[in-house]
Amino acid sequence: MDIKQVIKEKCSGLDKVMEGYALVGDADIDEMVLHPIKAGGKRIRPALTILACEAVGGSADAAMPAAASVELLHTFTLVHDDIMDKDDERRGKPTVHSLWGDDMGILIGDALYSAAFAALADLRRRGIDDTRSMDAIETLIEANDKVHQGQIKDMLFEGKDQVSEDEYLDMIAKKTGALIEASVKIGCIAGGGSPDQIKGFKTYGINCGLAFQIKDDILDLIADQQDLGKPVGSDIKSGKKTIMVLHALGSGSGEPMERLKRALGKESATDEEVSDAIRALDEMGSIGYAQDMLTKLIDGAKSSLDIVEDNEAKSHLLAVADYILMRKR
Amino acid sequence: MDIKQVIKEKCSGLDKVMEGYALVGDADIDEMVLHPIKAGGKRIRPALTILACEAVGGSADAAMPAAASVELLHTFTLVHDDIMDKDDERRGKPTVHSLWGDDMGILIGDALYSAAFAALADLRRRGIDDTRSMDAIETLIEANDKVHQGQIKDMLFEGKDQVSEDEYLDMIAKKTGALIEASVKIGCIAGGGSPDQIKGFKTYGINCGLAFQIKDDILDLIADQQDLGKPVGSDIKSGKKTIMVLHALGSGSGEPMERLKRALGKESATDEEVSDAIRALDEMGSIGYAQDMLTKLIDGAKSSLDIVEDNEAKSHLLAVADYILMRKR
Repeated sequence: MDIKQVIKEKCSGLDKVMEGYALVGDADIDEMVLHPIKAGGKRIRPALTILACEAVGGSADAAMPAAASVELLHTFTLVHDDIMDKDDERRGKPTVHSLWGDDMGILIGDALYSAAFAALADLRRRGIDDTRSMDAIETLIEANDKVHQGQIKDMLFEGKDQVSEDEYLDMIAKKTGALIEASVKIGCIAGGGSPDQIKGFKTYGINCGLAFQIKDDILDLIADQQDLGKPVGSDIKSGKKTIMVLHALGSGSGEPMERLKRALGKESATDEEVSDAIRALDEMGSIGYAQDMLTKLIDGAKSSLDIVEDNEAKSHLLAVADYILMRKR
Repeated sequence: MDIKQVIKEKCSGLDKVMEGYALVGDADIDEMVLHPIKAGGKRIRPALTILACEAVGGSADAAMPAAASVELLHTFTLVHDDIMDKDDERRGKPTVHSLWGDDMGILIGDALYSAAFAALADLRRRGIDDTRSMDAIETLIEANDKVHQGQIKDMLFEGKDQVSEDEYLDMIAKKTGALIEASVKIGCIAGGGSPDQIKGFKTYGINCGLAFQIKDDILDLIADQQDLGKPVGSDIKSGKKTIMVLHALGSGSGEPMERLKRALGKESATDEEVSDAIRALDEMGSIGYAQDMLTKLIDGAKSSLDIVEDNEAKSHLLAVADYILMRKR
């Protein structure tokens, strides 16, 4: 079965559950908090939560508040991100702040943040004992801390000349990886996983989270423009310090380096200059370097699931890892 | 003993505890998250948490993470409020967003939000069992939900011609009251209070929270300008729909009403017109109406503490209620 179809089926009742936690019973407020939920999304995080819960023997029903929680938290970060990035559209729909102003955008984001915790605390009403509920909540808090740190670091990096590969990996592990890691770990906790299983699933999550961001960065360079849905090479023009760029700046030299620098961080670079910079990154081995890292991360993610016996949910988790590796957009 | 001195002593180690939960180990980030904590504040909410914990037989030490939590949550709301209100100073110090920009202000607020939950989850490491820890966390989540709803409603009221007294009381109960209520209730939970005690302390908190806001509104009209530290009557000029204004609009008429309307919502009103509007509110019985409501709320708060035997912490809680009633700023 196509893994995208599996994700869709696993999350079929999710939107209603998310809405239940976000609604406050006031028509004006409800219209605004529901807007970013109705806008939809890939729903990868909640699918991971449900699959992890099932893979260790729990039910999808018990995992549902947790799945809603991680997606509500993700939704909140997007609402605040859109204000900061001044993005007026997301997924083809107007963003919260573009409809109701920045101030309301801040508050609606804060309200979704709160709904994420309300959803997770509801685990105790789904047959999960209070110790596991607390473990799940602490996992979300820890992830949440990291997400903000990652976002702050990302913003601080923009003003820095030098960023090391370790600093970059730490930043994306926090900004993108932490919530994916938490989504998997929380599912495993809710499903009654053993300490060893929780540890294994956490590793799966960390690796998938890092891989997800690195794949995004690779796709920006080598995807088919039609698949990607946005111009290829936009990270080159914006000067984003991806793992490929950091590799090249650290080890590349000579003529390819000249070609990279001609387009890097120059919004006015021509399509030809951008293509040339991407070829240069390839010639310096930087794209291959990132591909190798990606492959190793996915291999590590998959083998960390050896901690559970084979079952359908586990096979789906393995397929999600492959999907992260192979996706074209 | 002066109750302000009691609050100060109860919260003597609080800032360090708050800082411990907010620090992330990165010098750039830490400077920013510590800034609004170091700016200080009245610390009434954490003092209520500690006193409620002690009043039901718990220790101040066990309550400390909870006290840090409610104040961190309060601090986060102030950081976001300052962005929305475009306030460049608070407590005589530059605000986060005025130093590092609105985007960073949003993220630093979000990070403090996260630290508030991290602090509260730490109760389980202070000898509080997981069921009580979950009860405390759910109390904070519920309060948090209400705070955002109250803020959103307050913003929506600005664009409305008609607001009823019930709507106004519901809004301030959420915006200002909910976190004060939660501060007391969480202290009682952490201290091992019985269900009846938790209920009684909750009532104390609700009443004090509402009273706190109504007293603020009264002080804006009748305080000594030097005590208040800001111009008396500023709510009149901004057209704020306080309980007094709503009372007057609902039941006043004739010549006093004319004098009120001459200044209400007019930033250009003269000092004389503002004083005249305040006198008109008094003549229409609106200030007396609010004073009566305030007295009843404080009486209710105090009698709800009958649920515990007399002890030192309880006497301080009674004194806090009197302080809310009597304070001059």
